[in-house]
Amino acid sequence: MNRTILTSAIVIFGCAASLHAQADPLPSWNDGPSKKAILDFVAKVTKEGSPDFVASAERIAVFDNDGTLWCEQPMYFQLAFVLDRIKAMAGEHPEWKEREPFASVLKGDVKSALAGGEKGVMEMMAVTHAGMTTDAFKASVVKWIKTARHPKFDRPYNRCVYQPMLEVLAYLRASGFKTFIVSGGGVEFMRAFAEETYGIPPEQVIGSSGVVKFEMNADGKPVLIKEPKIEFIDDGPGKPVGINRFIGRRPIMAFGNSDGDLQMLQYTTTGSGARFGLIVHHTDDQREVAYDRKSHIGKLDKALDEAAARGWTVVDMKNEWKAVFPSK
Amino acid sequence: MNRTILTSAIVIFGCAASLHAQADPLPSWNDGPSKKAILDFVAKVTKEGSPDFVASAERIAVFDNDGTLWCEQPMYFQLAFVLDRIKAMAGEHPEWKEREPFASVLKGDVKSALAGGEKGVMEMMAVTHAGMTTDAFKASVVKWIKTARHPKFDRPYNRCVYQPMLEVLAYLRASGFKTFIVSGGGVEFMRAFAEETYGIPPEQVIGSSGVVKFEMNADGKPVLIKEPKIEFIDDGPGKPVGINRFIGRRPIMAFGNSDGDLQMLQYTTTGSGARFGLIVHHTDDQREVAYDRKSHIGKLDKALDEAAARGWTVVDMKNEWKAVFPSK
Repeated sequence: MNRTILTSAIVIFGCAASLHAQADPLPSWNDGPSKKAILDFVAKVTKEGSPDFVASAERIAVFDNDGTLWCEQPMYFQLAFVLDRIKAMAGEHPEWKEREPFASVLKGDVKSALAGGEKGVMEMMAVTHAGMTTDAFKASVVKWIKTARHPKFDRPYNRCVYQPMLEVLAYLRASGFKTFIVSGGGVEFMRAFAEETYGIPPEQVIGSSGVVKFEMNADGKPVLIKEPKIEFIDDGPGKPVGINRFIGRRPIMAFGNSDGDLQMLQYTTTGSGARFGLIVHHTDDQREVAYDRKSHIGKLDKALDEAAARGWTVVDMKNEWKAVFPSK
Repeated sequence: MNRTILTSAIVIFGCAASLHAQADPLPSWNDGPSKKAILDFVAKVTKEGSPDFVASAERIAVFDNDGTLWCEQPMYFQLAFVLDRIKAMAGEHPEWKEREPFASVLKGDVKSALAGGEKGVMEMMAVTHAGMTTDAFKASVVKWIKTARHPKFDRPYNRCVYQPMLEVLAYLRASGFKTFIVSGGGVEFMRAFAEETYGIPPEQVIGSSGVVKFEMNADGKPVLIKEPKIEFIDDGPGKPVGINRFIGRRPIMAFGNSDGDLQMLQYTTTGSGARFGLIVHHTDDQREVAYDRKSHIGKLDKALDEAAARGWTVVDMKNEWKAVFPSK
């Protein structure tokens, strides 16, 4: 083949590849009902002149994080961060060897550490999430994300994200949507990695939060100090409240996976005009973890019952996703 | 002149006009120190390869609203809204004729209405801002903005905005900035007009807020109800807290006009890298109102003292602004 033909072939192949990419923005989704529902909805709300057309400014899509964008098994990743931080900080706290729940954490006995219930969890949250500046907390999360690895999937936690959902995020943004995370997870925890992981900037991450206080430090520099007090729980009925507080308008698409997302799905899909609700159903016990109505984490029961009545799309992960995670 | 020459002249004139527009993004500013400071700062943070270059995602600019983007005299516009709403609602509340602070409002005696202090103000806020859905509240603000007129400037309240500041907002956005409002005003009040007035979408408006509750209404539809309880005061030290809560990163530019903006200016301008703080100083008693250290509204005292030491730009409205308001 002479050089000119080779060049032409490359150009043609390049065009074909680009055409194909344009034709299928969701390559990790099998051609099932969920993929069709997403594509059809986006097509109708973005087509000017269509009765369902929605102006770009109103194209707000909200995503739960744990179990919807990234894995939440065998424990919420933020809890893994808490346990790892306690181990990392133990050198400065010799007293923890004798004090619960820290003693159990240091022995690697998570079950006993959690046996103390809310009080113990709040103590662990206080030492790992408060009593420091917002900048210092962020640095601790960034360091953890770079070094910790998921025990089962043997990859960094922020690579335990769902490849098909990354494609949905990118597809929506390319279609003029603004994508937001609306999660029960800690807002400052998520903001430390959301931009790099999901392409979602901090100002589009909504989550639970603790009280933060403005202070002048010893050098006369203003700092924000995280206090060990809950300010807002962005879960269940808190999600529509958080959406109103942070976004100030009703989304037209909502993506969740558990009963904690029920009210967000209800609120989003009962607005006027075209609306879309989707539930990621964890049906794949080979590539991930299969769980729903009886799970302690990410319980999906009422929302699954309501999905049919309200016309929400329910994704069968096992059968509708070609891949679960990105290549390592 | 033949047609060809005419066409050429139009093209040349068009190009020249467009060059001129490009050369001066702030046409309502005189060539004074403030205009130069804004242009110089934006030039250096947007020039790739410059030691002061800031990536677009980090180009966050925050603006106070009352007294910085729009007028705040002779009273905060939100208070004018409260008084107008009470008059509009009085037909359904015959008891208000006998009950303070409503009786004074209905007589047009604002001074007496406010004499009851915080308790009276909270009562007026409760009836005009709570006990209704977020949608109903928004509708009441939109209606007011469309019909009410400022007593002195005889134009709608959202035309009592500062033309030079509208130009700064547009210029920053054209330079890759995201512009946010960070105001002591009510967040849901501002969001009802901020997009149309300033080109700032609801999700980029931060303000004071009341508690909002998620409920199912009688038709089984989810609604958000505004309650008569303060949730957050976005003023003074609350401004950096609000910035952290809603934006999640430190802005590089802050614009204010009063001591309520002091901590926002301190927090913004003490971050690492290039930083910019600006104070609008109300010096024009002809075209607007001259006030600073002794004003009850928008008092500017400590922040004015700190401006010189911290290198903040202080705008002399009278001498630096060619126009104050947009043409009607």
